[in-house]
Amino acid sequence: MTEKRLLIVSGTHGNEINPIWAVEKFKKINDIDCEDRNIQFILGNPYACEKGLRYIDVDLNRSFNVPETSINEKYYEINRAKNLLKNFGIKSSKPCQIAIDLHTTTSSMGTSIVMYGRRKKDFCLAAILQNQLGLPIYLHEKDKNQTGFLVEAWPSGLVIEIGPVAQNHYDSQIVERFIVILNFLKKIIQDLENSKINLPNEINVFVHRNSIDYPRDGNLKINALIHPERINQDWHEIQKGDPLFLDLEGQTIPYNESERTYPVFIGEAAYREKRIAMSFTQKETIKCSEKWIEEL
Amino acid sequence: MTEKRLLIVSGTHGNEINPIWAVEKFKKINDIDCEDRNIQFILGNPYACEKGLRYIDVDLNRSFNVPETSINEKYYEINRAKNLLKNFGIKSSKPCQIAIDLHTTTSSMGTSIVMYGRRKKDFCLAAILQNQLGLPIYLHEKDKNQTGFLVEAWPSGLVIEIGPVAQNHYDSQIVERFIVILNFLKKIIQDLENSKINLPNEINVFVHRNSIDYPRDGNLKINALIHPERINQDWHEIQKGDPLFLDLEGQTIPYNESERTYPVFIGEAAYREKRIAMSFTQKETIKCSEKWIEEL
Repeated sequence: MTEKRLLIVSGTHGNEINPIWAVEKFKKINDIDCEDRNIQFILGNPYACEKGLRYIDVDLNRSFNVPETSINEKYYEINRAKNLLKNFGIKSSKPCQIAIDLHTTTSSMGTSIVMYGRRKKDFCLAAILQNQLGLPIYLHEKDKNQTGFLVEAWPSGLVIEIGPVAQNHYDSQIVERFIVILNFLKKIIQDLENSKINLPNEINVFVHRNSIDYPRDGNLKINALIHPERINQDWHEIQKGDPLFLDLEGQTIPYNESERTYPVFIGEAAYREKRIAMSFTQKETIKCSEKWIEEL
Repeated sequence: MTEKRLLIVSGTHGNEINPIWAVEKFKKINDIDCEDRNIQFILGNPYACEKGLRYIDVDLNRSFNVPETSINEKYYEINRAKNLLKNFGIKSSKPCQIAIDLHTTTSSMGTSIVMYGRRKKDFCLAAILQNQLGLPIYLHEKDKNQTGFLVEAWPSGLVIEIGPVAQNHYDSQIVERFIVILNFLKKIIQDLENSKINLPNEINVFVHRNSIDYPRDGNLKINALIHPERINQDWHEIQKGDPLFLDLEGQTIPYNESERTYPVFIGEAAYREKRIAMSFTQKETIKCSEKWIEEL
């Protein structure tokens, strides 16, 4: 096993402040400045962090695959994405092989993993985390409307997503949950070097199927909210007839598909502008392979 | 009792979306367009609502007493404040005598009343609400750093503040709580016309004493968070030695004053930029007077 460097990113969204604090605390506890032999810490979007905004021009976490156009060149986040790759990407002078991007959500996702596509290296990391910490995994794939995620620009990478917590709201319990993850990642990197990793036989993942918007009226104005029985019920299976939304007249809008599903990111505040009220997933069991460890 | 018109404002902060929805639902249930004989509904900051931001240039709810300077004239919210007064102020062609401004907070304030200064008319309204619904009252006064609140620009007015809820996050339970308030206000206006109001003998108010900032390092960077024992404990009395903050090294920073206090707006996300981690209050009992009803 060759030496690995881990890139830990916080503040990719400037209003998700708890991971930023967790990283500061972790660095203090471990007496690390910005980097040590195995870990490089960076603040994803410093300008948005300063302003307390998700982003300045465009979402940094959708900016890692955009075409080079004269308009795109003007956007702060698109330049920032290039800059991060230039300094910490696999071809940089300080190459990191694995990127971990720390996020919070206003949805009741608990402590969870988000992975993008089916890279074996990502499965390997996610399997280690699920095996040891029992975290649920949301596998995001085949969604043409949502691309350009930060971790996809590194050879391997995962998002850690913890919620519910309000944007710009410090919560020491959320901070502590990130610190558990950071300690664990530090240990994984050491264990990888010492070939001490064991994988489980299989892992469960919740595979992205589709996202749905809020119901809207003729003027595209939202006219129904997440149903009280659905809100804060992320990861819970629903079936045909279960309530999804409640409209202004008090009418329930149910889930109407025959296939059962597990909704995630229910009512996430930042996804309203992306026209996503929740995403539907299907459970899938993935057989693990010891070869994944060699690949990583 | 002369006829009263009530101004109900939602969306004074564009990222507090639950009151906006509650007003839409209330109007639908009661088959009201934007106004009826007794109530005028307005969206405080339409542009900020569209953008999902607290404000565009400056906080609208601190913009109702600013000096007329060439710089101020350029700010969207300062012009909006003027516009609201011109159209719905006491000297307008559609005068409203009472303003109710609906807000949410990320703090655990429950359903609460905020009043500004000691106007008898406001005490009267607050007494009716506390008597019937048991709501706690935060009396904000003598704070030179925070002025220009919307309701102060009308002869009488209160803020209804409900939390915790994340900014830009719909929560049907929060919406329902606002609808309870709106139904109650509608009834109060009718009762006032019919002289059916009875006041309690006295009310309890939590009077603003001072606000405190987060602890900061030499570079003015926040270096301690609200203590886990203090977060979400709004309205709970504390005394000397009780924990306030927890710093990066895990050290507790306690409350050090001899006088007991009741903290409110603990950790409110939007107050970080105002350098307020929480506000301290003292309990005071106010004798009610039946004359208040005539004044109102």
